[in-house]
Amino acid sequence: MDHDRFLQLATECPWPRAAEAPARLSPFTMAVRSVCAPVLDLPPHADLASYVERRAELGTAEAVRRLLRAGGIERLLIETGMEPPGIATPAEMSEVSGLPTSTVVRLETLMEAVAPGSSPARLVDDFEEVLDERLTSAVGVKTVAAYRCGLELPAAPPADTDVRKAAERWLRETRRTGRHRLTDRLLIGRAVWAAVDRGLVMQVHVGFGDPDVDLHRADPSFLMPFLHATRTTGARIALLHCFPYLSQAATLAHVFPHVWLDASCVSHFAGPSAPGLVRDALTVAPFDRVLFASDAYGLAEQYLVSAITWRRGLGVLLDEWLCDGWLAADDAHRVAGLIGADNARSLYGLTAA
Amino acid sequence: MDHDRFLQLATECPWPRAAEAPARLSPFTMAVRSVCAPVLDLPPHADLASYVERRAELGTAEAVRRLLRAGGIERLLIETGMEPPGIATPAEMSEVSGLPTSTVVRLETLMEAVAPGSSPARLVDDFEEVLDERLTSAVGVKTVAAYRCGLELPAAPPADTDVRKAAERWLRETRRTGRHRLTDRLLIGRAVWAAVDRGLVMQVHVGFGDPDVDLHRADPSFLMPFLHATRTTGARIALLHCFPYLSQAATLAHVFPHVWLDASCVSHFAGPSAPGLVRDALTVAPFDRVLFASDAYGLAEQYLVSAITWRRGLGVLLDEWLCDGWLAADDAHRVAGLIGADNARSLYGLTAA
Amino acid sequence: MDHDRFLQLATECPWPRAAEAPARLSPFTMAVRSVCAPVLDLPPHADLASYVERRAELGTAEAVRRLLRAGGIERLLIETGMEPPGIATPAEMSEVSGLPTSTVVRLETLMEAVAPGSSPARLVDDFEEVLDERLTSAVGVKTVAAYRCGLELPAAPPADTDVRKAAERWLRETRRTGRHRLTDRLLIGRAVWAAVDRGLVMQVHVGFGDPDVDLHRADPSFLMPFLHATRTTGARIALLHCFPYLSQAATLAHVFPHVWLDASCVSHFAGPSAPGLVRDALTVAPFDRVLFASDAYGLAEQYLVSAITWRRGLGVLLDEWLCDGWLAADDAHRVAGLIGADNARSLYGLTAA
Repeated sequence: MDHDRFLQLATECPWPRAAEAPARLSPFTMAVRSVCAPVLDLPPHADLASYVERRAELGTAEAVRRLLRAGGIERLLIETGMEPPGIATPAEMSEVSGLPTSTVVRLETLMEAVAPGSSPARLVDDFEEVLDERLTSAVGVKTVAAYRCGLELPAAPPADTDVRKAAERWLRETRRTGRHRLTDRLLIGRAVWAAVDRGLVMQVHVGFGDPDVDLHRADPSFLMPFLHATRTTGARIALLHCFPYLSQAATLAHVFPHVWLDASCVSHFAGPSAPGLVRDALTVAPFDRVLFASDAYGLAEQYLVSAITWRRGLGVLLDEWLCDGWLAADDAHRVAGLIGADNARSLYGLTAA
Repeated sequence: MDHDRFLQLATECPWPRAAEAPARLSPFTMAVRSVCAPVLDLPPHADLASYVERRAELGTAEAVRRLLRAGGIERLLIETGMEPPGIATPAEMSEVSGLPTSTVVRLETLMEAVAPGSSPARLVDDFEEVLDERLTSAVGVKTVAAYRCGLELPAAPPADTDVRKAAERWLRETRRTGRHRLTDRLLIGRAVWAAVDRGLVMQVHVGFGDPDVDLHRADPSFLMPFLHATRTTGARIALLHCFPYLSQAATLAHVFPHVWLDASCVSHFAGPSAPGLVRDALTVAPFDRVLFASDAYGLAEQYLVSAITWRRGLGVLLDEWLCDGWLAADDAHRVAGLIGADNARSLYGLTAA
Repeated sequence: MDHDRFLQLATECPWPRAAEAPARLSPFTMAVRSVCAPVLDLPPHADLASYVERRAELGTAEAVRRLLRAGGIERLLIETGMEPPGIATPAEMSEVSGLPTSTVVRLETLMEAVAPGSSPARLVDDFEEVLDERLTSAVGVKTVAAYRCGLELPAAPPADTDVRKAAERWLRETRRTGRHRLTDRLLIGRAVWAAVDRGLVMQVHVGFGDPDVDLHRADPSFLMPFLHATRTTGARIALLHCFPYLSQAATLAHVFPHVWLDASCVSHFAGPSAPGLVRDALTVAPFDRVLFASDAYGLAEQYLVSAITWRRGLGVLLDEWLCDGWLAADDAHRVAGLIGADNARSLYGLTAA
């Protein structure tokens, strides 16, 4: 892990920025220097070059171990849809962190994986067979429809004949181009409804992400017809990240009984501003529907920064509410426990470690 | 009023949630335990079961009387479009509270009420006849277009022939199905323009509501062509609730001379976070265009929580501005008076009680 | 400058409001009375009538000189697309303020200016010739597409034949009506791509403005395809104003390497609330991509109020981050220097005065 690679993983901007020094000054790198540097034995606010040097000196395994332990995280739920070289597998993460690990299956990646060996007639069956196999060891699924076709997910399972035609088009196209990126709304809808029919927990990427996301169509308001259609199916929907649509997501978590909300992702990229976003997530959502998550990817620093920003944000907010007489101390503890751990345990069917 | 019925009225989620205790911990129930419990002689933060029990012991009339008086509300404007069994009428509210009451007419409900006895040719005349009759004792009208067809209201009165055809379609459909829910954009547009032509105050539901609302199309930005078209008609438009579009609504109240804004509804459902929303409502709107309202429905607690959150939110904000030298003390009193009472009096043509 | 003219320039509402006193109480007029009154030798919070009287007594030139100097602004970048009678030219602004002045060319105004003497075949060439001439003394261009056709700017230069046809339609229409307002998306797109091809800095009006703006289509999320298409062209995009889409704009400044963000315009119209908007602008944007600007127009008070609100907003935020240990004092100074001056210098290719 050299300086350039570190900077590359420290942003959702996938392209090299101008090389000047200021580019390295972001809310996340500021937070890394504040909260991660001391964990690697450096003074707070050590400059980034010293930080990356010290990280290399300790070795990745030791640095990751320290950063993960300092966050007080109890269990890792790892979504396995993006595993380029150099990214640790769930087994490796478990080993280095000493923490129990569960997996989440990315629906689009799974369909893309079965496509090359499948046919239009068999695509859905092949997908469902592999899905069921993967579900034996996973706690839920995730859709990145926000990146592929927008959040207007179909409010009913797509008809078989339409799915078959869409599969024909897509497989013909993939064979012609050699590219398997799934963007077809019908096929993604079919995969999503396979998850709904199984009564799974389904994570939905909402809002902020890398520049591939269509920010306008990543507004969770577009999910309303789908949420009406899935309300009584047993499926539970977790809206992930949600910036800049935290208020919209909180509204959905208020009005639908099967919707949860985490404000991960910006919890590290917003650094010092992240506590304000935790506040936004809690405006109108019931306290049993909001949960801590980190959306860490690539840098173990993201786990620690997310954990710290949630803890501080929630802590400051509850203290303020206590001071203002909005709640009693035992309620404050209860809310902290729900958001920090119990809601995630309940949603994903996990027991306390 | 038992525990389950109380919880049902304490949320915009119309379906029973999972029965676990945490579901009862929401910003609103937290606020009820904080500010309403002492009004019913309980210690602050009494648990919800004790609260509901004490409420029953006092009797609904006494509880409602206490809660309404504690809020310092001077007059009730009651919109009469939703009157299921068990909901007090304006006359009953007046009697139990000892407060003067005015009514607001919901346009869609009125057209639905005249439909069964009308015909395509007479629908508009019948509607206008009943509207005029109701207006003799009402201070304004309200549209729930956000729930029915979205906020792209027509920028001109729909043509008579188009309205006639829409009436034919709708009445045929209502006779076939026995359901009278009005969702046709032309007919709603015709009703809205009847109000505009009369130079009335028209409340427009914006944003957050029960899950029937189409959150995306409840963005008040969609109203701009309608607002241009109605600017010089004498009609005045009050945007209601507005979460999560408070900034958009404040923008419209800034740029149009006939637009007002209240941030009710979330003023109780957001509980301890509501003061932050009062702050958002005041960002760019002139101080003579923002007004306190409660959107209370079903639970008298909503009046008190809304009154308290507005008072605290506005009080903290004005104190902060005073400390920072943004305004003088007499301006702070003036702004508080405008938002707390004078703007509503001026908009609805009321005199001080 | 009399009282009525002052009030007219103190809002984006172009129509006279009801004459009552409260209409004069807005966040901006409150800020003028707080921060500008002492600069004109009045006590803070002097009433507006006294303020306007004192301003007239001093004379416009002296009042403007004092207000501009009190803001500590180093250089004026003046966009010249709106120059009605009574508005100072860049040369006049330079003379009265004693500050160096640079200009920014409004693309739509330029095309409207060449239209009367041009033809469909020559429109683009004529436009580009005048553009190049103007660029010899300008630091960049600006598009007001948000007011004209919305922010879905074309992701590739429009084809010549399509542009030719659009030019025919528009010129025919302008000759018929005598009005030259350019709203055609293809022609605006062609002008925008002329700027992109020249690798210019292009300002894009986003969000809040006068009531002509289509607020919904002024959401910068709609720019994503255009931003992908222009990423490697050398063009740099500055998103201006951005309320109520500051979070969306900050997201784009995070994920695209050629996007900058200023939160001007509401920095004066929001007055005491503007520091909170500075906070919103800094949530996820890198610190080298956000810059101070005033969007002052018509009233020199807007320069001072914007400068003060940015300075206070940024100062309070950095102090808070220092207190909470998020950054060191020298980082705070560096961030303040970047946002207050260095980012603008770097973006527009200016040297320190």
